[in-house]
Amino acid sequence: MKIVFATNNLNKLKEIQQILPTSIELLSLKDIGFSGEIPEDHETLEENAFQKAQYIFDRYKISCFADDTGLEVESLNGAPGVYSARYAGDDCAAENNMKKLLSEMQGKANRRAAFKTVVAFVTDTEKCAFKGIAIGEILNEKHGDKGFGYDPIFKPEGYDVSYAEMSSLEKNKISHRGKAVRKFTDYISLMS
Amino acid sequence: MKIVFATNNLNKLKEIQQILPTSIELLSLKDIGFSGEIPEDHETLEENAFQKAQYIFDRYKISCFADDTGLEVESLNGAPGVYSARYAGDDCAAENNMKKLLSEMQGKANRRAAFKTVVAFVTDTEKCAFKGIAIGEILNEKHGDKGFGYDPIFKPEGYDVSYAEMSSLEKNKISHRGKAVRKFTDYISLMS
Repeated sequence: MKIVFATNNLNKLKEIQQILPTSIELLSLKDIGFSGEIPEDHETLEENAFQKAQYIFDRYKISCFADDTGLEVESLNGAPGVYSARYAGDDCAAENNMKKLLSEMQGKANRRAAFKTVVAFVTDTEKCAFKGIAIGEILNEKHGDKGFGYDPIFKPEGYDVSYAEMSSLEKNKISHRGKAVRKFTDYISLMS
Repeated sequence: MKIVFATNNLNKLKEIQQILPTSIELLSLKDIGFSGEIPEDHETLEENAFQKAQYIFDRYKISCFADDTGLEVESLNGAPGVYSARYAGDDCAAENNMKKLLSEMQGKANRRAAFKTVVAFVTDTEKCAFKGIAIGEILNEKHGDKGFGYDPIFKPEGYDVSYAEMSSLEKNKISHRGKAVRKFTDYISLMS
């Protein structure tokens, strides 16, 4: 069975290739000849993930999955949420996003936050979304240099270190993305 | 694991109870204390099925599934489709719906049609829809008295009889609803 991962992130592609059963042939956007941007203009992670997977499925008729991730901070009423990747403006670097978030959080006593990933999968007869959540808190400053995005300022509940201070193996075990991806790979392994 | 079936149709409830693994405790709307109508006002089967399952999940926080079915006739540009149950008006009997469809089909050479069911399932971390399709044709008149809805005028491809001339066991093996329900029960059996 062939499936496309609708992402331009090669690290994500490599990561999931290692988890999928060998009966699945994983294709990249490049493999199917798609280049350009996939629209992503909804207001929830789930809608965005479905939009991306459906967009590719509709054009290539190959089963497709996509993911979307957001960081929801309690004292900011859920911001940056679905806008996490572009919190400090379009095409902005993770550094700027973190800087903005740390500045918004100055003086806030409640630093609770939830990292959420939704993986959406679309075939001709199925449409499934799997959500993974990690609860934690926003640190006062950056810690560690591993990972990406907001990892240096997110400390998962029950740990003394940030995501960026963990190995990717360690982080994937407990992370929002790891949880959602495992639900999806369980699904594809069992149902295919 | 407890799941609710968001339907007021006791036959459907009984049918699915026989297929589900014993580890699943199936609850009816009555079991959870819900009475009344669940809104169903979207324009696709999938949206309606999700709407019904989500409506109950949001109120009771118990995993819930719902189904929606439509008959799409090629020469009527896909009508009655999502409006199949109310084709001849609100709260109308199957007899009136069939009468209207037979009348609309008078003189049409192309009688191809597709029966479609979508089963949607909603939990706190998953949202899945499973589609079942049966291709066939609209007969010139009613045949048989089994089944329900449009069954007497739908002849599935590869068969010489209508749905309403088949035993429920025989029909379920090949029907749109049987296919969607089996995908869902596979899912719940494997993933729970």
